[in-house]
Amino acid sequence: MEKKIITISREFGAGGRTIGHIVADKLGIPFYDGKLVEDIAKESGFAPKFVEEHSEHSPSGSVFSYAFAPQGVPGIMNGLSTADYLWNAQCSVILELAEKGPCVIVGRNADYILKDRPDALHVYLSADNEYRAKRIVELYGETDKTPEQRLSEKDKRRRVNYQHYTGRTWGQSQNYDICLRTSTIGIEESAQIIIDTVLKSREK
Amino acid sequence: MEKKIITISREFGAGGRTIGHIVADKLGIPFYDGKLVEDIAKESGFAPKFVEEHSEHSPSGSVFSYAFAPQGVPGIMNGLSTADYLWNAQCSVILELAEKGPCVIVGRNADYILKDRPDALHVYLSADNEYRAKRIVELYGETDKTPEQRLSEKDKRRRVNYQHYTGRTWGQSQNYDICLRTSTIGIEESAQIIIDTVLKSREK
Repeated sequence: MEKKIITISREFGAGGRTIGHIVADKLGIPFYDGKLVEDIAKESGFAPKFVEEHSEHSPSGSVFSYAFAPQGVPGIMNGLSTADYLWNAQCSVILELAEKGPCVIVGRNADYILKDRPDALHVYLSADNEYRAKRIVELYGETDKTPEQRLSEKDKRRRVNYQHYTGRTWGQSQNYDICLRTSTIGIEESAQIIIDTVLKSREK
Repeated sequence: MEKKIITISREFGAGGRTIGHIVADKLGIPFYDGKLVEDIAKESGFAPKFVEEHSEHSPSGSVFSYAFAPQGVPGIMNGLSTADYLWNAQCSVILELAEKGPCVIVGRNADYILKDRPDALHVYLSADNEYRAKRIVELYGETDKTPEQRLSEKDKRRRVNYQHYTGRTWGQSQNYDICLRTSTIGIEESAQIIIDTVLKSREK
């Protein structure tokens, strides 16, 4: 079956955004990263209706009606945290984006959210720590933390968030169609493997 | 760096042997699967000396000298089981094979045994259960167990063995350079991705 939706899960610094952009550009399809999905979820008027339909994604679904409290209500809403509210909104946005047509989605656990779509290709990108440390300094500059600390903290946040919302283990290869260690394979080469796989899927 | 040694870890029925053969044939290098490595370990005169050198691979290394008890001594040898003895012999055989020159090694936790070789490319192959069930019946025929039982039992054995001897989680993508779901990617296509990666590594 033709793969139209490409989800890219990635370790911090492994090149997910860059590779996602190359794939989207070469295939001529829209690119969405986590930040963009989050912005859409926050601003979109259509999110709440999908939130209701897809409430099984919420770990505290039983108090789900509180998600419809006014946006101004901060923090915990009778058991549904703003994090959970946003997660639900993101699920609905990602499901909606995939419904709209071909695209590349980086991050936001889109692999899990779109796991039941046979036209989705799920990719996971990792890289050696040394390679990632060098890359994040080049891309995002120095901070008061060491690159190793920044990697460790961000990896942990992604891993814990993924496990919390999906019940799966972060980086378990059986959840993906393709996993690549970009420090071995290369950024351009990794993008090409994904593009070739999508193009070949059109022949099947 | 040029990748000369290709290790292929795989779920039962995911096409590891077939893909390994294609890769070895097209690259013109020797192919070793788990059975062959085991045979060499059993028959080889050079194994014991490596066993001694690489005893850190044994989970019960402290009683390692008992590994040199005559082959006829069955079962547990004062704490070092025959399984552990064979594991050590296999480690030595795999390290030796890699030292000899380019090759493809399927199974036997070769990814872990050769994890410190920068010229090794580590591949993991998975596939959907339905695809694997169909494939093992086509390849190996029916047995008195259902294909699902056979998959489950063999997967479990490999997973437990891997965890026992390596301390790693079976199928964790960060331990591999490339992981492919062959039921999505295809057998020939998976082989081609591996071959292309090896060929490209020669240019770097």
